[in-house]
Amino acid sequence: MEQLKELKNILGQISDLNGTLGLLSWDQETYMPEKGAESRARQMATLAKISHETSTSEKLGNLLSDLNDHEASLEEGSADAAMIRVARRDYGKLTRLPLDFVERQTLARNRAHHAWIRARKESNFSLFQDHLQEMFDLAREYAELMGYEEHPYNAALDDYEQGAKVSEVRETFANLRKDTLPLLRAVIDAGDATDYSILNRPLAAEKQKEFAMRVARDLGLSPEFSRLDTTAHPFQTNFSINDIRITTRYDETYWPTALYGVWHETGHGLYEHGVNPELERTNLARGTSLGIHESQSRMVENMICRSRAFWQHHHADFKAFAPEVVGEASAEDLYRAVNRVQPSLIRVEADELTYNFHIMLRFELELAVFEGSLAIKDLPEAWNQKMQDDLGITPPNDAMGVLQDIHWSAGLIGYFPTYSLGNLYACQLWNAAAKDLGDMDSLIAQGEASRIMGWMRENVHQYGKIYSPRELIQKATGAPLSAEHYVQYLNTKYKDVYRL
Amino acid sequence: MEQLKELKNILGQISDLNGTLGLLSWDQETYMPEKGAESRARQMATLAKISHETSTSEKLGNLLSDLNDHEASLEEGSADAAMIRVARRDYGKLTRLPLDFVERQTLARNRAHHAWIRARKESNFSLFQDHLQEMFDLAREYAELMGYEEHPYNAALDDYEQGAKVSEVRETFANLRKDTLPLLRAVIDAGDATDYSILNRPLAAEKQKEFAMRVARDLGLSPEFSRLDTTAHPFQTNFSINDIRITTRYDETYWPTALYGVWHETGHGLYEHGVNPELERTNLARGTSLGIHESQSRMVENMICRSRAFWQHHHADFKAFAPEVVGEASAEDLYRAVNRVQPSLIRVEADELTYNFHIMLRFELELAVFEGSLAIKDLPEAWNQKMQDDLGITPPNDAMGVLQDIHWSAGLIGYFPTYSLGNLYACQLWNAAAKDLGDMDSLIAQGEASRIMGWMRENVHQYGKIYSPRELIQKATGAPLSAEHYVQYLNTKYKDVYRL
Repeated sequence: MEQLKELKNILGQISDLNGTLGLLSWDQETYMPEKGAESRARQMATLAKISHETSTSEKLGNLLSDLNDHEASLEEGSADAAMIRVARRDYGKLTRLPLDFVERQTLARNRAHHAWIRARKESNFSLFQDHLQEMFDLAREYAELMGYEEHPYNAALDDYEQGAKVSEVRETFANLRKDTLPLLRAVIDAGDATDYSILNRPLAAEKQKEFAMRVARDLGLSPEFSRLDTTAHPFQTNFSINDIRITTRYDETYWPTALYGVWHETGHGLYEHGVNPELERTNLARGTSLGIHESQSRMVENMICRSRAFWQHHHADFKAFAPEVVGEASAEDLYRAVNRVQPSLIRVEADELTYNFHIMLRFELELAVFEGSLAIKDLPEAWNQKMQDDLGITPPNDAMGVLQDIHWSAGLIGYFPTYSLGNLYACQLWNAAAKDLGDMDSLIAQGEASRIMGWMRENVHQYGKIYSPRELIQKATGAPLSAEHYVQYLNTKYKDVYRL
Repeated sequence: MEQLKELKNILGQISDLNGTLGLLSWDQETYMPEKGAESRARQMATLAKISHETSTSEKLGNLLSDLNDHEASLEEGSADAAMIRVARRDYGKLTRLPLDFVERQTLARNRAHHAWIRARKESNFSLFQDHLQEMFDLAREYAELMGYEEHPYNAALDDYEQGAKVSEVRETFANLRKDTLPLLRAVIDAGDATDYSILNRPLAAEKQKEFAMRVARDLGLSPEFSRLDTTAHPFQTNFSINDIRITTRYDETYWPTALYGVWHETGHGLYEHGVNPELERTNLARGTSLGIHESQSRMVENMICRSRAFWQHHHADFKAFAPEVVGEASAEDLYRAVNRVQPSLIRVEADELTYNFHIMLRFELELAVFEGSLAIKDLPEAWNQKMQDDLGITPPNDAMGVLQDIHWSAGLIGYFPTYSLGNLYACQLWNAAAKDLGDMDSLIAQGEASRIMGWMRENVHQYGKIYSPRELIQKATGAPLSAEHYVQYLNTKYKDVYRL
């Protein structure tokens, strides 16, 4: 099959270019000397241009047409069929964008990003307002170019969570709110006399790193195929299945930042590493969606590493390693400390229970602006009102409110919902795994949490992009996505933590 | 001038691709997890292929033809004229190689490299012999494809030192041998009762790094545009004028390895950083030849950092920083210790005076094999005989003799002479600088060695590849290359060090 071979060649080349772009970007955040920035931006632009040209070439288009018949002959769910289908989808999306649109979008995003940096610094929303309007206008224009079913916002969602629908997200989030807001109220009303000073006991960055990586290794992230570096904003990236890079930042007087940050990125890294090596250099060798990705990171961070069983297993270890932190605190003390619930202004610092309210707020406001029912100029007030309604606090300024996230300034509209979808996927997958593995807490308490990630590898990671997120969740759990698993998890856990 | 603009676009793209290839390679040596190697090799192959296709495209060929008339109208020595000339030269060389040859060469080099690793490990030349023959056969074939004047080896030399001729190198090396072998003999005969234990006093890698970089910064290598990392084999690379990477290795019981290693690479780094920023993203934004490059690294390493004046300036500093090393040693003690002359087997560990004999040996043997007057099978014996003749020692095995360098296994034939040419260039440039700057030792002793590198920037670095090495040395020193400056330097210095 000459054409299939040729398609694999082209996809391999695109994969190499994109892996290389990943390295250019990683190096920029980790080790590049400051003055290298200008040339680096040019190098990235050149690589991106070549990747884009290769991804939209007539040659690729013709190949995909020629492969129509062959595709029909392939078994559904086979890697080759998925490869052709995903290639067709990506090619369709990219070629639907006129060059003029791409250029306008690139320029507008660049302007918006710089305006946002200044606006946030000066805490002055009016400096960002017109640029944000342009981002939403472009998102609507994008939706028209792409085409959509039911609602134009579905085109925005589809880039991050293939097949997600605004109607379903709305309903899911409504259920989530209905079933967890009373819990949050109860937790707040119960008051909290716990002593949290253990979280602020000093621990040197080097020691934080060592302990974080020891746990990450136990979970399966081996230094043979991964490494940890330091950046201002933590992230996970990878240049191939066996070259996983995670980063974190260190706060020497608040060790959970680095430890839970590393464990979060470990989840992302295990997903990318767990893809079947036979898919390497194809368009399938990545996680299938942002939501499924987030399910793996938040599963490791919260469901494993913030569990009571985790600290039962690691308490002695951590105490021996960092007696200056643990002191006389018990496993139970550690467990309760890292699960503190406290309404706060900044999403990335939010606890597990309040986190989704930050996301739902963004989704609802984003959709309202996108639909035209909320004017950009009214966004800060709407933001503050929702914060007050859900979490009972009001940002003192826009920098700590509507201006806090980078996403909108980068045109990432349709992205936020995936964070909460990730939590939902995580619990649904967890419950499915428990049917095979038995008592998950016992596993974790016995230091066998890696078996949970092994189940994820078998049922989620290995497939890469062979299945869409909808197909994958159905296949792995036997049911479509539902909020009930997550609602139940939160209720059980936080009623226990807060002894309600 | 539309065509000139288009040429600059293409050269900019090639420059971005090559800078990116540099990063892929740097990361491979520094931070890449072990298992990333296979995908990394594919990424590099893809980038190299795209760079090669762009560099040999018909479009570029046509542009260069179209620019014939324009080129004739440009001022000689102008950057645009040089850019077109160098582009024409590179294009000519690359397009003279049939695809079949490039493929055979790539495969043979790969085989030879692996055979060499095994042969060196087992110290068994016969495992490498046939592969080495193939490397020389390919080098001869390459010369025929490229064309040459006078001698086919000139085609090999030209890739590393444009315009170098075997007849001239032969004569230069003959003079060098004639005028420094008696000096070496005298040094050896004089005996040496110096206590060198200071060189082996333990110094932690972190401290070695700090002191090495402090000196490098004083010389002009700022962390704003450079960084130092650790690798098994030290090197300098850069991805743009403002993104210089150097590496070193640490021996905690022999501090000169890292310190002088860093200072050597600092010279390379300053050259690449000193190129006129207006040449960035053209084909001129690199050092003009390996020989000129080596002149800058060896000037910093030997002429500055192994000078008496250097230790006069840095003695107190180093003593305060590393009292455990310096102890009661004087500046003079340090000076004499780091200039120890001792015939040894391994080129990369050789001192300044014996170093050139290692190079001349390689050049003479390489040329003899290339010309067919020496059979590959007789190479080990010829090597050992020459070592005995010049340095009075015989390698106990081939791993420490003919198999020690990577160069031949990588097909780098014509490369070795540039190391010694670098020493010659260095002294000739130094003497020219002294005419402008006055007493160089006083400058160094006063901590103003950076003014010497400033002169190099003005007279060497800034031009990048605008001038060929021959043109550059004529322009900067008013004379063609001559061994006399270097011979005089070695005689003056080592008669002084050894009090002859």
